Amino acid sequence: MNRDTQRAKAEAFRAMHDRSRILVLPNAWDAMSARVVEDAGARAIATTSAGLAFSVGYPDGEAIPRDEMIAAIARIARVVTIPVSADIESGFAKDTRELAETIRQVLDAGAVGINLEDQIHDDGQPRLYDLDAAVERVRAARDAADSSGVPLVINARTDVYLLGVGKPETRFEHAVRRVNAYRKAGADCLFIPGLAHRTDIERIVPALEGPLNLLPFPGIPTIPELERLGVARLSVGTRLTLGAMSVLRKSPDELLNAGTYGSMLAATVTYAEANRLMAGRKS
Amino acid sequence: MNRDTQRAKAEAFRAMHDRSRILVLPNAWDAMSARVVEDAGARAIATTSAGLAFSVGYPDGEAIPRDEMIAAIARIARVVTIPVSADIESGFAKDTRELAETIRQVLDAGAVGINLEDQIHDDGQPRLYDLDAAVERVRAARDAADSSGVPLVINARTDVYLLGVGKPETRFEHAVRRVNAYRKAGADCLFIPGLAHRTDIERIVPALEGPLNLLPFPGIPTIPELERLGVARLSVGTRLTLGAMSVLRKSPDELLNAGTYGSMLAATVTYAEANRLMAGRKS
Repeated sequence: MNRDTQRAKAEAFRAMHDRSRILVLPNAWDAMSARVVEDAGARAIATTSAGLAFSVGYPDGEAIPRDEMIAAIARIARVVTIPVSADIESGFAKDTRELAETIRQVLDAGAVGINLEDQIHDDGQPRLYDLDAAVERVRAARDAADSSGVPLVINARTDVYLLGVGKPETRFEHAVRRVNAYRKAGADCLFIPGLAHRTDIERIVPALEGPLNLLPFPGIPTIPELERLGVARLSVGTRLTLGAMSVLRKSPDELLNAGTYGSMLAATVTYAEANRLMAGRKS
Repeated sequence: MNRDTQRAKAEAFRAMHDRSRILVLPNAWDAMSARVVEDAGARAIATTSAGLAFSVGYPDGEAIPRDEMIAAIARIARVVTIPVSADIESGFAKDTRELAETIRQVLDAGAVGINLEDQIHDDGQPRLYDLDAAVERVRAARDAADSSGVPLVINARTDVYLLGVGKPETRFEHAVRRVNAYRKAGADCLFIPGLAHRTDIERIVPALEGPLNLLPFPGIPTIPELERLGVARLSVGTRLTLGAMSVLRKSPDELLNAGTYGSMLAATVTYAEANRLMAGRKS
């Protein structure tokens, strides 16, 4: 993609966060799912890091080699005309220099947006980067994109809720403090997966200094209600991938055990089961 | 994969065609689907050329660059322990020298079996290779595998039925003549997609000089019945992929239009719709 086209796509994608209309992103993981989602009328494609990793043979959590992730993003960007935002987890980078390199490669692959987490992915316990380090990483991503001349849309994610950091009653303020700091460092959208209760949503929207991205969890209001509450963006993460896997699992069972050709009936694969499955362990 | 392991896998895969028990292959298209199928208890993984092509962004019919197909096969072979058979359409080759190169690359990717069609994939009308040319191609595949030292399981496919070649009453004999010639040229299994009626199956099994592979079409007997009739192998082609796409299509609709999170309900995408979709045309 030439840089002019890419710049225009990035600007178009940024404009979708203006809260005039909630941006709904049914996350895709390969060229096929991206085309199905585009064809269904989505305004942009966001990748799911888990689904993308599963499809090329890895569990989630930066287990996939960076170059395989980049190649998969490029395959998606090649086949859709709408903007593509890449879930790059925490950037596949132990320092900001490596993070900048990831950003350059993601842009070369044709993406115009990223998700960037504040979770440390190494072999230790899942935990957050210190606030200063997390802010520094958002700034490094911003600088790398600016140097490349593409106004990359940075969706900065805090995993305060997902990781259950600190006492429950402290998480709201902690998440607000983090994402507002990410906003000042150059983030365009603020992603707080795990926050889903109406009362929390009503309270957080005015407390944030930028547009809010949520993920559906049980009990979350419908999408039109989220729009009325001022939520800018809703993405579904790995849910479509898991739904596809659930259905896929049903048919081989029928073929191999009942000996009938059967129908594609929905079943339930959890995120953990899928991760175990993809890590090569029996579920 | 080292060649000793690969040889052992090829021998194990060949032994699955001994008709003591029908070999059921729920075709996979990426590492995720391959792992789901393996986990469901399949004895081997066969790829679907259509599903594989869709997943990396191409329609079926040798539109995918050969190196992308090979890379996708390698991603599948890396994550499963059971034998992998690669659907390589007609070999991505305008002559037998190129076909031999495809075979070498498929073996290097870790596959121990192939499907090889007798259909010409170019920009013209779909049509069959002349019998002599088709036989020569099977022999070239056999020779290339022998040179590599891997007893590759060659599933030679005739598209007499799929392409509706000649008058309907001539197809049975035509298909028998072709696949028996492929068997003499070194094929291990004989694949006749489109043949599905019980009376035809009863008649063809004793007429063939090798094990028979069928594809489910409406009206085909159940799998235990096929086993009793002497069918060696049943593969499902692109059906699981289309089932997954059908379900996948439902959820973005719900998210984008109803604004609800919905459930994954089955819908129907045809092979032609999927091809149109993946070729970038609206379905």
